[in-house]
Amino acid sequence: MVNTDQKLINLRREFHRCAETGWLEFETTIKIIKYLKSFGYKVKYGKEIHGDRMGLPDSDAIKKHKETISIDTDFDVSEILDGYTGAVGILDTHKDGPVIALRFDIDANGIEESNDKEHRPTMEGFASKKPNAMHACGHDGHIAIGLTVAEQLAMDKHHLSGKYILIFQPAEEGVRGAKSIVESGILKDVDYLISGHIGLGAEENEIVCGTIGFLATSKLDIYFEGKPAHAGANPEMGKNALLAASNCALNLHTLTQFGRGMSRLNVGILKAGTARNIVPHKAFMEIETRGENGDVNSLLLQKVYQVIEGSARSFDVKYRIVEAGGAPAYNNLDKSFIDGLVEVLKKKNMKITTGKSLGASEDITYMMNEVERNGGKSVYLMFGTKLTAPHHNNRFDFDESVLNLAYEAYLEIIRSLL
Amino acid sequence: MVNTDQKLINLRREFHRCAETGWLEFETTIKIIKYLKSFGYKVKYGKEIHGDRMGLPDSDAIKKHKETISIDTDFDVSEILDGYTGAVGILDTHKDGPVIALRFDIDANGIEESNDKEHRPTMEGFASKKPNAMHACGHDGHIAIGLTVAEQLAMDKHHLSGKYILIFQPAEEGVRGAKSIVESGILKDVDYLISGHIGLGAEENEIVCGTIGFLATSKLDIYFEGKPAHAGANPEMGKNALLAASNCALNLHTLTQFGRGMSRLNVGILKAGTARNIVPHKAFMEIETRGENGDVNSLLLQKVYQVIEGSARSFDVKYRIVEAGGAPAYNNLDKSFIDGLVEVLKKKNMKITTGKSLGASEDITYMMNEVERNGGKSVYLMFGTKLTAPHHNNRFDFDESVLNLAYEAYLEIIRSLL
Amino acid sequence: MVNTDQKLINLRREFHRCAETGWLEFETTIKIIKYLKSFGYKVKYGKEIHGDRMGLPDSDAIKKHKETISIDTDFDVSEILDGYTGAVGILDTHKDGPVIALRFDIDANGIEESNDKEHRPTMEGFASKKPNAMHACGHDGHIAIGLTVAEQLAMDKHHLSGKYILIFQPAEEGVRGAKSIVESGILKDVDYLISGHIGLGAEENEIVCGTIGFLATSKLDIYFEGKPAHAGANPEMGKNALLAASNCALNLHTLTQFGRGMSRLNVGILKAGTARNIVPHKAFMEIETRGENGDVNSLLLQKVYQVIEGSARSFDVKYRIVEAGGAPAYNNLDKSFIDGLVEVLKKKNMKITTGKSLGASEDITYMMNEVERNGGKSVYLMFGTKLTAPHHNNRFDFDESVLNLAYEAYLEIIRSLL
Amino acid sequence: MVNTDQKLINLRREFHRCAETGWLEFETTIKIIKYLKSFGYKVKYGKEIHGDRMGLPDSDAIKKHKETISIDTDFDVSEILDGYTGAVGILDTHKDGPVIALRFDIDANGIEESNDKEHRPTMEGFASKKPNAMHACGHDGHIAIGLTVAEQLAMDKHHLSGKYILIFQPAEEGVRGAKSIVESGILKDVDYLISGHIGLGAEENEIVCGTIGFLATSKLDIYFEGKPAHAGANPEMGKNALLAASNCALNLHTLTQFGRGMSRLNVGILKAGTARNIVPHKAFMEIETRGENGDVNSLLLQKVYQVIEGSARSFDVKYRIVEAGGAPAYNNLDKSFIDGLVEVLKKKNMKITTGKSLGASEDITYMMNEVERNGGKSVYLMFGTKLTAPHHNNRFDFDESVLNLAYEAYLEIIRSLL
Repeated sequence: MVNTDQKLINLRREFHRCAETGWLEFETTIKIIKYLKSFGYKVKYGKEIHGDRMGLPDSDAIKKHKETISIDTDFDVSEILDGYTGAVGILDTHKDGPVIALRFDIDANGIEESNDKEHRPTMEGFASKKPNAMHACGHDGHIAIGLTVAEQLAMDKHHLSGKYILIFQPAEEGVRGAKSIVESGILKDVDYLISGHIGLGAEENEIVCGTIGFLATSKLDIYFEGKPAHAGANPEMGKNALLAASNCALNLHTLTQFGRGMSRLNVGILKAGTARNIVPHKAFMEIETRGENGDVNSLLLQKVYQVIEGSARSFDVKYRIVEAGGAPAYNNLDKSFIDGLVEVLKKKNMKITTGKSLGASEDITYMMNEVERNGGKSVYLMFGTKLTAPHHNNRFDFDESVLNLAYEAYLEIIRSLL
Repeated sequence: MVNTDQKLINLRREFHRCAETGWLEFETTIKIIKYLKSFGYKVKYGKEIHGDRMGLPDSDAIKKHKETISIDTDFDVSEILDGYTGAVGILDTHKDGPVIALRFDIDANGIEESNDKEHRPTMEGFASKKPNAMHACGHDGHIAIGLTVAEQLAMDKHHLSGKYILIFQPAEEGVRGAKSIVESGILKDVDYLISGHIGLGAEENEIVCGTIGFLATSKLDIYFEGKPAHAGANPEMGKNALLAASNCALNLHTLTQFGRGMSRLNVGILKAGTARNIVPHKAFMEIETRGENGDVNSLLLQKVYQVIEGSARSFDVKYRIVEAGGAPAYNNLDKSFIDGLVEVLKKKNMKITTGKSLGASEDITYMMNEVERNGGKSVYLMFGTKLTAPHHNNRFDFDESVLNLAYEAYLEIIRSLL
Repeated sequence: MVNTDQKLINLRREFHRCAETGWLEFETTIKIIKYLKSFGYKVKYGKEIHGDRMGLPDSDAIKKHKETISIDTDFDVSEILDGYTGAVGILDTHKDGPVIALRFDIDANGIEESNDKEHRPTMEGFASKKPNAMHACGHDGHIAIGLTVAEQLAMDKHHLSGKYILIFQPAEEGVRGAKSIVESGILKDVDYLISGHIGLGAEENEIVCGTIGFLATSKLDIYFEGKPAHAGANPEMGKNALLAASNCALNLHTLTQFGRGMSRLNVGILKAGTARNIVPHKAFMEIETRGENGDVNSLLLQKVYQVIEGSARSFDVKYRIVEAGGAPAYNNLDKSFIDGLVEVLKKKNMKITTGKSLGASEDITYMMNEVERNGGKSVYLMFGTKLTAPHHNNRFDFDESVLNLAYEAYLEIIRSLL
Repeated sequence: MVNTDQKLINLRREFHRCAETGWLEFETTIKIIKYLKSFGYKVKYGKEIHGDRMGLPDSDAIKKHKETISIDTDFDVSEILDGYTGAVGILDTHKDGPVIALRFDIDANGIEESNDKEHRPTMEGFASKKPNAMHACGHDGHIAIGLTVAEQLAMDKHHLSGKYILIFQPAEEGVRGAKSIVESGILKDVDYLISGHIGLGAEENEIVCGTIGFLATSKLDIYFEGKPAHAGANPEMGKNALLAASNCALNLHTLTQFGRGMSRLNVGILKAGTARNIVPHKAFMEIETRGENGDVNSLLLQKVYQVIEGSARSFDVKYRIVEAGGAPAYNNLDKSFIDGLVEVLKKKNMKITTGKSLGASEDITYMMNEVERNGGKSVYLMFGTKLTAPHHNNRFDFDESVLNLAYEAYLEIIRSLL
């Protein structure tokens, strides 16, 4: 019999191998569904767990990825293969008790994994088999923890009460997937939401219970469309999308001074024009905003929209803005709730701190805000461990003993809530 | 008895002394009216010769100038002192014949005249007595020519036929006054319009008969108004008019490439802000556009308005555009009409060329276009002479013999039209 | 005999009446010198207490202000009337003991005081008699406190030990004067530096002992000089200072995103150009930067200089940067020293807090850093009181009972340091 | 025996089929060499006919194109396959006489030819066989004319005197190849240079003999390189190449007002940045300038370099400028020489005009200026014909009877020069 530790490691490595980026987690989703079904869960997936999907890859990318995978299932996967990825496992004890949701993110990064022999996944043969996709943020570990917790809950079912909703969320990178899941309504009656992340701001072997400082963020794709013209013969007939975008980029970067909290803005990508001698009629920009709180990000976004509109007007071009991602801020610390959890974990000799700031964005905040708006409570944990390289680096790896630490923390917290 | 030459010189020097800038030609206008009345003209002035006055000085400047002059007239000058300057003398022979309009511009430049002893007006004691106002464009000469022609026509009245309309136009500098005069309707039935200018592109002693190449131009004053805020404490509460104006200035200067003819744009003045530590909420710009033809200037103006609106939108500020001046293009050369005039002048042993280009703007074009639109004909002459310095220079002066040359050319042309 | 309270109020009102702005504190300085001399102080003033004076008014303004005042002194005031304002009173007990410096700022704001009858200075007849100058920041109170403390110390001289340096600093507004005083060397051997401010972040009747959060700041005046040209005839011959400045303003505002602490930048004033139809060859800008710490402000300034140089290069114009003001950050809280002072004040039943943040700039930081660099200690106090309007408002006034509170706090602290 | 007309058409279609873009004319060059050798010409090619090649494709593109062609020659083509394309055929009569150079450009456009059945090359089976390369500017015709003239000259050799240099120039599109050929020195002793173009400004069946109005032009590729940084965590550590390029693009577009002649500038392409959340550290721009005369383009270029340098300085990034193409202006009309040629052609009942303006750029001007600088003479002809679509359109085709017209014009002119 495989012990829990080994089970966690095996699962983590299985999913590390089949790294898939946001909305393309086809194999990943199918594997998760199979496991959940094998544990006895009722599983929801496809359109029924989704609303508006932000930052979807274009249809070519979806089609192309579909062609690379072979399917062997006894259930209908067509919606999954259209990008309705992720899965929700439901375990109902049919006994009075709280509705407890757990959330695990499942997507990989668009990074080519290092093939350096000293990189353990390469050395030990579990590196990503997919080109330009790698679990460099620990979500492979999150899946492993989620499935192992799922199995244990199913095994303990008769000693438990209430209902368990295990959400395996796609497209956390780029903060795209959570909003879609929330819009499906799956979180409506949840009393407690628990989620967490390997690494980040937690020190080695430390668990942060009650993370705050989630920045609000918005990711926008901006398209300008003007009119081409020969730049030598009749330049006045052109409508210059390159200048509109250039002007927009500069003006956007003047917007970030806020007295009411830190803000950030970046125009990360700008592409414009078709040929040296043609007045450029097309331009494209990828931008992002961040705010220390929702108020900052909202006001910043309002200013961003004005600058985009004004730049388009100045050069008489059309524009289109596509929301490619986003997440609200989260700064709550429900002291009595969190302190209770801290006590529970400390009793197990875990090293616990509380109230640390993420200082970044995570779209779990969509879910946390939704649950709390409905009267529920939520907690986000960080599981400290030794990393070989920073998150999102092509040599990222972690000490796999953190998997068991996280697994036990989830179970302890669940038991304490009953 | 004073000969014509001396009369012209005396008049020129009288008006040189009382140089007054556009819309403030109070003394100048009153003197002209007195002369015209003394010659027996019916004189129109004040509101009856005006429509919409562009580029009017502010009411303080009008009030201040009013206080500097002493009035001694037997006619009502209150409208003149409100900036309805200029005068129109009408001589009706009551015999069938053409309606002939002559136009002379009367305003000075906002320049302090040189007090260098070698500058003849200073040396000979006829320099401007008004601070910061100087006839540095020869309009003093134009008045002298106009009044002397007026006197001669009145004296010849019984030998003449038709009707004579002598327009003494204010505010030609900044191309402001002609539009207002045209709107009064005074030019409605004119068969021939004759005007001209001392110096410019004509060579010494040469008369250009039939000038073309008048550029279309627009002069705009632009006001941006935002919202002040403390730049340290809450910069996001401000609406930055300085950045709107700066952005506007840069973007305006990208607009001047035209395949269909030369264009020009200049942001000549920009003033913004109130204090170093306040988000600037006010900005002001003076700009001008030019076009080789009306089509170029119109399309350019349309683009200018878009940039202004877009810049205001980008920084969430309000804007106001005031037309401070303007003139249409003029490029006609009615060959048979002009050739006829050239013949007339050549017979008098004058050195004549035709079809030279002004390469600048003059608001006579409002009048020329109006007359021609109604079926009349028009001609603009340039009277070449030796200048001591370029037009608009504080040491500008001209060889006064050109006055008689111009005087005779006007009379010859008039006689040939009867 | 006048009690201290009344003496403080009389002095405050005397100086309120003769409000003078930075580097123009001619009457103010002379009055202060007379008082200090009358108390028996050795007084330094003029060039001997100054180094490099930032943000000096132009020579016309100095000359003009000189003409408005009448002088009646038995000492030489010529340097004072050249803008070497302020005074330093020295009281040496000739007994072993610490060197204690006190600093009081003496300049007024460039504001026209309200003549509303409900504004107490107006109602009670002690409003500013100087046009466009008003004590709207409480420095009149600071002078009163300083002189009254000075008199008391002189009276107590035989019971005291050490040496007392009372600095009456000019030009604190715009953070201009402290650097000049420091450069004179007057603070070289100081063991303790005490200063403070009426109002600001302190609550009514509260004293903040140990203020931190002084922002680093720099005030720069920027001059661009290009080449004029006729905008219609030969625009390519011009070198456009207006576009250089506009471009500079926009680019400067893109520089404020810092991960290592809050930063601010404002282009508060921009003036460019001479006429609508001339390529503008002159431009002027007033800007300021701020940083949560010195590192932020230094790096920001470095970027600012690059943008200015780059903008000048882009438009082929020359530039000149004048430091018009500035102050370093200050964030120290020498816990044992400050806690000791807090104890002293609390014993007198004063309401004391500590460690409040100024969240703004004050050039006392030049002095505090200087003293601490040399091994001394410093403290900055805020004296809470009821204000009728915010600082720098034309209806600013304060409850004069705060004068006595501050006076007593200074004396208590001094006594505790012996 | 094939008549000349059919020979011209066959050759034109052969080269139309193997359309190759600038510096990649591998098959085209080899075919031309084979023909020239078969006619008895001494042929120069490879490095010996080249100097500095502007706008070379990157080495990957060269390598890739090399792989698509099969070689069957008895001469060394390695230099040709490294992008030293084009060939020069020399026919020396060894009799005293002038050195006459003819120039034919040989490259195709980077356009996918229309596969519409109504497009004659498609219908008749001679459409381009190369992807994304098409003769849409008539250079296939120029090659056909050049080779047929070459054959005829070789056949007439014994009746001719002097020396004949037939230049088959690569990379005229983008005005890249002529400079390189000139630098080889091949034109050093040329007495007469003759070149021409099908279509353009000539009317149907008209020959323009003596074309002027060639615009000076420069094509620049600009690279900015800054430093990446995380846009959320430490934006101040980044050096933003995207903003440098955006700012540069806007400022470049303010440079085009010239009193001394028309100018143009276009930033045709701008690409910057790597990811939404990274401060963009790379940017690339393709720009072009044009000037009515060399003076305008030189001064414009000087201003362009200043703006690039200034923008880089402003954002503290490095830059690199690569000349990707260029050509001088040409406005000479050597009246007696050209009039002589016009007479010659008119005698052959050809419809001739002279002095028409190209209003565009052609790098033949490098050669014309070189020949005239050395005391020789040059003429550029335009051969009017019916076009099915504008030049550079994917449905471009011409009436092949123009080939014979041009062929005969070349021969007549040559004969007249002996």
